[in-house]
Amino acid sequence: MRRAVTPTREEDYPEWYQQVIKVAELAEHSPVRGCMVIRPWGYALWENIQRILDKRLKETGHQNAYFPLFIPLSYLEREAAHIEGFAKECAVVTHHRLIKGEDGKLIPDPDGKLEEPLVVRPTSEMIIGEMFSKWIESHRDLPLLINQWANVVRWEMRTRLFLRTAEFLWQEGHTAHATEEEALEETLKILDIYVDFAEKVLAIPAIKGEKTESERFPGAAASYTLEAMMQDGKALQAGTSHFLGQNFSKVANITFQSSTGEQELAWTTSWGVSTRLIGGLIMVHSDDDGLVLPPRIASAQIVIIPHLNKPESKEEILNYCRTLKEKLQAIPYGAGQLTVQLDERDIRSGEKVWSWIKKGVPMRIEIGPKELAEKRLSIAKRTKAHKDRQSLSEEELLETVVDQLDAIQSDLLQKAKAFQKAHLKEIDTKEEFYRFFKEERGFASAHWSGDPAVEEMVQRDLNVSIRCIPMDGKKEKGVCPFTGKESRRRVIFAKSY
Amino acid sequence: MRRAVTPTREEDYPEWYQQVIKVAELAEHSPVRGCMVIRPWGYALWENIQRILDKRLKETGHQNAYFPLFIPLSYLEREAAHIEGFAKECAVVTHHRLIKGEDGKLIPDPDGKLEEPLVVRPTSEMIIGEMFSKWIESHRDLPLLINQWANVVRWEMRTRLFLRTAEFLWQEGHTAHATEEEALEETLKILDIYVDFAEKVLAIPAIKGEKTESERFPGAAASYTLEAMMQDGKALQAGTSHFLGQNFSKVANITFQSSTGEQELAWTTSWGVSTRLIGGLIMVHSDDDGLVLPPRIASAQIVIIPHLNKPESKEEILNYCRTLKEKLQAIPYGAGQLTVQLDERDIRSGEKVWSWIKKGVPMRIEIGPKELAEKRLSIAKRTKAHKDRQSLSEEELLETVVDQLDAIQSDLLQKAKAFQKAHLKEIDTKEEFYRFFKEERGFASAHWSGDPAVEEMVQRDLNVSIRCIPMDGKKEKGVCPFTGKESRRRVIFAKSY
Repeated sequence: MRRAVTPTREEDYPEWYQQVIKVAELAEHSPVRGCMVIRPWGYALWENIQRILDKRLKETGHQNAYFPLFIPLSYLEREAAHIEGFAKECAVVTHHRLIKGEDGKLIPDPDGKLEEPLVVRPTSEMIIGEMFSKWIESHRDLPLLINQWANVVRWEMRTRLFLRTAEFLWQEGHTAHATEEEALEETLKILDIYVDFAEKVLAIPAIKGEKTESERFPGAAASYTLEAMMQDGKALQAGTSHFLGQNFSKVANITFQSSTGEQELAWTTSWGVSTRLIGGLIMVHSDDDGLVLPPRIASAQIVIIPHLNKPESKEEILNYCRTLKEKLQAIPYGAGQLTVQLDERDIRSGEKVWSWIKKGVPMRIEIGPKELAEKRLSIAKRTKAHKDRQSLSEEELLETVVDQLDAIQSDLLQKAKAFQKAHLKEIDTKEEFYRFFKEERGFASAHWSGDPAVEEMVQRDLNVSIRCIPMDGKKEKGVCPFTGKESRRRVIFAKSY
Repeated sequence: MRRAVTPTREEDYPEWYQQVIKVAELAEHSPVRGCMVIRPWGYALWENIQRILDKRLKETGHQNAYFPLFIPLSYLEREAAHIEGFAKECAVVTHHRLIKGEDGKLIPDPDGKLEEPLVVRPTSEMIIGEMFSKWIESHRDLPLLINQWANVVRWEMRTRLFLRTAEFLWQEGHTAHATEEEALEETLKILDIYVDFAEKVLAIPAIKGEKTESERFPGAAASYTLEAMMQDGKALQAGTSHFLGQNFSKVANITFQSSTGEQELAWTTSWGVSTRLIGGLIMVHSDDDGLVLPPRIASAQIVIIPHLNKPESKEEILNYCRTLKEKLQAIPYGAGQLTVQLDERDIRSGEKVWSWIKKGVPMRIEIGPKELAEKRLSIAKRTKAHKDRQSLSEEELLETVVDQLDAIQSDLLQKAKAFQKAHLKEIDTKEEFYRFFKEERGFASAHWSGDPAVEEMVQRDLNVSIRCIPMDGKKEKGVCPFTGKESRRRVIFAKSY
């Protein structure tokens, strides 16, 4: 059988991933080391993520703002664990001017050297904390709930489109609260928003839990994560929410006068999701014919493909398709309306069809002279066999289209859930654990005594880490298969992106 | 009379501008030299600009994408005029890692020095042109209509919030076309979109025209601009649209196979508006009590201010206000619904009222025990005297609110148009020209022979420049008052931001 992507997932999963991105025209490497170009079809996914998530964050009282791209080096140094975590991957601005060098080529102007180098933000706790310390005076100013949509830079030696790039796009939330309890509540509320968004919009089921100490965000008191299973059984950290305690308040001096008149340190949180989510979306749903998009996040839910090979019917078919597009685009969907593409290109119909299969559009409507004459539309779905067509009248289509899209959305989620369930194994011996990660793909749910030496060992031997200490599910005691010590509950081990 | 802003416009216009930004909580200087923090009330204006303009750009066939923040130095050097224009204001990344120096402080790691320095994008023609050269093969790939919402950096020694900052936010459109005619048409189509947006949404009338050669975008064949008059009579360049000819196609090698099979160079354009627009918005409409926002762009159209000083009526009033807010927010406005703030703060009503006057909300609804008992709402408008109240029933309010907001919008535009007309003078002698710019405020419409020496002279003597060669209005011939030479038409001179 002809497949649009070479190699297939089974043949070479990492290369399949790159090829899906290529044939779907989502993104590509730029001439700038480690930086990607997000093409319109991929950027539309990010715009949809932004629109839907932004709405949810605003509904829960968060406001957007914008903070500087650059962070003075001295600010980063304030929190020891924080700078320790980021120092090795910082892009550093040292000059603010170029001049012609001796050979006539431009060089950084020695007279334009900055007194203090600036780091391109890898994250914004330090600069936002500085502003919070100015804005917060009294308990009446709390909670302060701020979010920023921005680009950040973390220098990476080995990059992968969407998953690991030097520059990426994200949202970073930063909040300050009067009490520890409120800050923790915020941290977990955001985690739930992320989990719900991943499941309902991206059709990605995720396991939520706390990170172990060794996997915490640099400087955090506790980090929470949602971990999703890719089709190769590896984990993708799809979002994180950090309870920062008073660590950042201390160094940024974020204090407030309490209702009883005392000066107290605020409790802060930070949390984010990034363009990584698009990598997860690709790896959870796509197949050997290219991208598969859940309708709720799709760049377009529907494509109309007119068959234009007979010149005598061309205009009539095009006019019909344009009107149908208008009608479909007027139908409410999500917080807006349906998005519909009409492929008017003057190329073979088969070529058109394959291009939209590769781009993952959930529903295709093909219209040729026969369909027009019989007033029946030929409907195909990305999640069904390509030859599997439904014949509907226009009226039937308009009436059922949202339900049909919802069914696709639900099918994709169920499929991903079933895959996750099938590849999440409870494992109780070290031998079986090692065999599993050498021979199979998936997550292992195993007991762990809490000893970081176990994390080091499985990382070294198997490239496996503890993805999270899950928050849902049973909390049975047991024995750690690695140390023989007592364990309070199972944790999730996996290889990861 | 009490005024909320000190100094007033007449006393010290530049300082008044800074104070409006401060009292309206729009933005502030950050600890990072030249970079601003945009606060939620200011960022909401940018979000509205994005939402409305993005829709118009998509309706005219443009697609969003994202390109790298960094541009290799060698790319910038490709176009001589281009790099000449930007070399003196480039932030340069030279290292990708930090290590501890001898004194224990972090320094850029000498072993992490980049082989080729990277410039933080001041604009993206070079990196986008490089991608265009890969994406465009045939005339079928044209036109290519791309837009990017992004941050850019141009190092500035003297900065002013919104008007001139090292980092700012903007959209930059980049398009490629098969013919000169189409590219020029695109350039002017975008200029018209900008002018229409400024007038209809921001209530800012602007004069559109071409830049003189000395004011052109570095590397462009022709630059078009819209120039708006601020209340101090100075001009603000509110947006630009550039016809790049084949200059950038040549250096980036953007070629295509024409329908007759020949390899041809594409014709390109670029255009943008930025957070500068917010500076213009402030300077055109605001007064000595703070910000004045046109409803179409306002962060919120309406604020509801409950009078909560009597404990016995507090809950009843709050409940009523919450319901009213829901009802108002369900009313369609622009492409969405009305945005309404409800001020539940436990502070004096007078203090609340003044805070919203300073923040420029177009309409205030005050509700106390009396209003609740009589079922009448007290309505005030930012553009009227503060004591000038309308008494309406809830029903009357809900029925008329959109019309009332439209009237405010229209009034603000008419007022700005009248101001522009009153301060745009036709001037025919050098003497009068010099007197005008020394003693009065405004724009001068004067003949000009085309001699760049005149531009240098008035810049040096009066800090005045030619803002544009206007595209609308009469094209009468005349005599250049500076050189005595023949002039084909009048041009617009002004001091500028």
